[in-house]
Amino acid sequence: MAAPPSNLTRIGLAGLAVMGQNLALNIAEKGFPISVYNRTTSKVDETVERAKQEGNLPLYGFHDPESFVRSIQKPRVVIMLVKAGAPVDQTIKTLSVYLEKGDCIIDGGNDWYENTERREKEMAEMGLLYLGMGVSGGEEGARHGPSMMPGGSFEAYKNIEDILVKVAAQVPDSGPCVTYIGEGGSGNFVKMVHNGIEYGDMQLIAEAYDVLKSVGKLSNEELHHVFLEWNKGELLSFLIEITADIFGIKDDKGDGYLVDKVLDKTGMKGTGKWTVQQAADLSVAAPTIASSLDARFLSGLKEERVEAAKVFKSGGFGDILTDQAVDKQKLIDDVRQALYASKICSYAQGMNLIRAKSIEKGWDLKLGELARIWKGGCIIRAVFLDRIKKAYDRNADLANLLVDPEFAKEIIERQSAWRRVVCLAINSGISTPGMSASLAYFDTYRRDRLPANLVQAQRDYFGAHTYERTDVQGSFHTEWFKIAKQQAKI
Amino acid sequence: MAAPPSNLTRIGLAGLAVMGQNLALNIAEKGFPISVYNRTTSKVDETVERAKQEGNLPLYGFHDPESFVRSIQKPRVVIMLVKAGAPVDQTIKTLSVYLEKGDCIIDGGNDWYENTERREKEMAEMGLLYLGMGVSGGEEGARHGPSMMPGGSFEAYKNIEDILVKVAAQVPDSGPCVTYIGEGGSGNFVKMVHNGIEYGDMQLIAEAYDVLKSVGKLSNEELHHVFLEWNKGELLSFLIEITADIFGIKDDKGDGYLVDKVLDKTGMKGTGKWTVQQAADLSVAAPTIASSLDARFLSGLKEERVEAAKVFKSGGFGDILTDQAVDKQKLIDDVRQALYASKICSYAQGMNLIRAKSIEKGWDLKLGELARIWKGGCIIRAVFLDRIKKAYDRNADLANLLVDPEFAKEIIERQSAWRRVVCLAINSGISTPGMSASLAYFDTYRRDRLPANLVQAQRDYFGAHTYERTDVQGSFHTEWFKIAKQQAKI
Repeated sequence: MAAPPSNLTRIGLAGLAVMGQNLALNIAEKGFPISVYNRTTSKVDETVERAKQEGNLPLYGFHDPESFVRSIQKPRVVIMLVKAGAPVDQTIKTLSVYLEKGDCIIDGGNDWYENTERREKEMAEMGLLYLGMGVSGGEEGARHGPSMMPGGSFEAYKNIEDILVKVAAQVPDSGPCVTYIGEGGSGNFVKMVHNGIEYGDMQLIAEAYDVLKSVGKLSNEELHHVFLEWNKGELLSFLIEITADIFGIKDDKGDGYLVDKVLDKTGMKGTGKWTVQQAADLSVAAPTIASSLDARFLSGLKEERVEAAKVFKSGGFGDILTDQAVDKQKLIDDVRQALYASKICSYAQGMNLIRAKSIEKGWDLKLGELARIWKGGCIIRAVFLDRIKKAYDRNADLANLLVDPEFAKEIIERQSAWRRVVCLAINSGISTPGMSASLAYFDTYRRDRLPANLVQAQRDYFGAHTYERTDVQGSFHTEWFKIAKQQAKI
Repeated sequence: MAAPPSNLTRIGLAGLAVMGQNLALNIAEKGFPISVYNRTTSKVDETVERAKQEGNLPLYGFHDPESFVRSIQKPRVVIMLVKAGAPVDQTIKTLSVYLEKGDCIIDGGNDWYENTERREKEMAEMGLLYLGMGVSGGEEGARHGPSMMPGGSFEAYKNIEDILVKVAAQVPDSGPCVTYIGEGGSGNFVKMVHNGIEYGDMQLIAEAYDVLKSVGKLSNEELHHVFLEWNKGELLSFLIEITADIFGIKDDKGDGYLVDKVLDKTGMKGTGKWTVQQAADLSVAAPTIASSLDARFLSGLKEERVEAAKVFKSGGFGDILTDQAVDKQKLIDDVRQALYASKICSYAQGMNLIRAKSIEKGWDLKLGELARIWKGGCIIRAVFLDRIKKAYDRNADLANLLVDPEFAKEIIERQSAWRRVVCLAINSGISTPGMSASLAYFDTYRRDRLPANLVQAQRDYFGAHTYERTDVQGSFHTEWFKIAKQQAKI
């Protein structure tokens, strides 16, 4: 363990798994002396060793919570990076014994926003401050510049704003990827939706891959080049970049490419599920995000799928129904457009979900500002986010991203390709659930008249739920059954 | 008010809104003397009057809870039909003052299943029994034979089984539409999923209507005949029947048909939302049901849709993109098949959701038996449910309805039509979110290899989440970034 600093440190960090270690090193590297602590003390020593190796950074390790807390200057700020749920409560309990009035704990994990609100209240009763701060960017982001979404006590935010703006990813012409999100659990909520959007992006990319590979018969090498190419244009983003990388990597355990050896089962950790449940709670349609969650669920049923494939193969068709000749270059171009148009729908859903919650909770969240802090550091970082920011700059009250004049124009230009890709996939017997859901969302949202009149008529028929009319104000009920029976007699 | 009976009544019912009145009259008509009570006493008198008019039925009204409870023979059973939530707790509080050990309250509303489990515990502490019983069938069903889903105390169920089997809808060769569902909140949970399935059915029918009307240009009269025809075959069901009725009804306030004057905004009451949230919680994909919920949400944004329609109309296209010649008869036949195949997917999702919950809670629910009690009385009653019952009779452990040999065969026969309809809708610029979601569900579930390998590779790339391999057991992590950068240097 490093010797305790002669002077007090500026900040503390507890929880030294991958994210914690990297964020601590990042803070130290930006010139802020930092104290670190972990229950398993070997992690402390490991972090101290890394700090030494990565340039004698001002990072000081402690094996017990008391000396850890006492080493930090007042008002003390401790960032926690431990598992969401009970470990967060446990760490708060351990630390708060030694904290004093005005000190602050920041949860940097992905906890449920209501937990943050409960903890903020409990902390306030002890005279302590609390922030729930979503941190995105994975290992690399944490080390070199993440996107951070702090919500809760504004006073606490102000105490460490100078640190956060230096530690965050820096985007030219757009500033550091951090801002005070809002009160209560708003930081966690926004990070949760960010993750839901991330699910959507990943699913849409997987579908693009599926169409290009299964229908277009592109090789991994071709896919590698397609994604490299896409990363120079409108799709330029971290996820497209790493996808290009992935297709370039050979298997070190055998022949061929590693991606083909990866099992088609996808894990998940809860934020995608919460996003979908919150959307339902707030009456916001988020079908693209929901379809990406469902795709993960179905991917998990590997054994069932293998059995089902046998049932339907013997039924006369295999994976790919058509052997239609495909113009590869045209297909690549179509898929790029379909991916982009679907992505707009997915972000429209996520943004509207955030706004609905903001209204419910009175958080007064700024959607354009969120797009700005997602431009760098985080997993969904993309040139695309600048367009979203500009859309909200043009009109902060935009009902839906789809009707922003620029996005509307982009969709109109791409809709033919979009429809071609989805239909090609359907006719090839593969599924593009995210792209189809996006297209259905678009085609539903932009129709002034939906067949919902029939649904409402049915509800009034069997449940007397009443209906409105297109021509007269008011609420109406019709005795549909009686009238139908009378007519039948005539 | 009728004079109190010289002898005690067999059962009581509290809450005399539409459902309560009708269920009480039904019970009385089946020969069980019944006491009724309502806080607003005019409802009591109204019900007593109806009982007289509908054949001097043995129904006795009370204006205060004490004499109401004391008029019932022991062990007393009181069915509550009041609004879910606080009114249920209030009614329990009012009644339980007068109830004695061994007496039972039955909630016949659509409350959240966990509320039922909480109440069952609270009642048990007072020595009272409790059942949460979903009742489906609307006004007509309640009066003449609903489908009922009682869950909770088995002892309480046994006390009134003789009443329920007579009051329930009767289906030839299949018995009364009631059975003891299982412990705890299972009755409410099953009813909730029933309602989710109902959302799906209604949405799929609305989409069939939309395609036939918007693309096929069918008139209401033609639609009336199409649905009448459909109700003679595989789609035979209550919802298809009332849809046929609806298309036949003229507007009494003006020209034309009433359905065209109904505003395209759909209401909802919570069970569909819960179904979608529970599916996410239990890692069960339920995209057809979710899409029907989203369609209701989007229908509610009428003003936004009108504005969006303007944006995209000026952008160069209206509602319907194509003016391709359509063979009406072929289209009708295709849409029927698409509707049927989509319906199979929707029920597969609902059934798997129920099974997942049953496993989680140890309820040991019998899926085939649920299909049986839904064959009559309830809103989703259909000849189709007999096929589902038979599928589970063949194999109670069926992983998914899709792989039942009979359903698989039906899907294989219909898949070309299904794909044609969805693509026609897409190319016509209208949306069939439910049918598309169903098709994507099918095409995902029956594929042994999905593009989920890419998603998992991405997760391992940026978050070190590890992956499994297709060829070797174990959990693997690759330094994708490092390898990609090394390769780039070569």
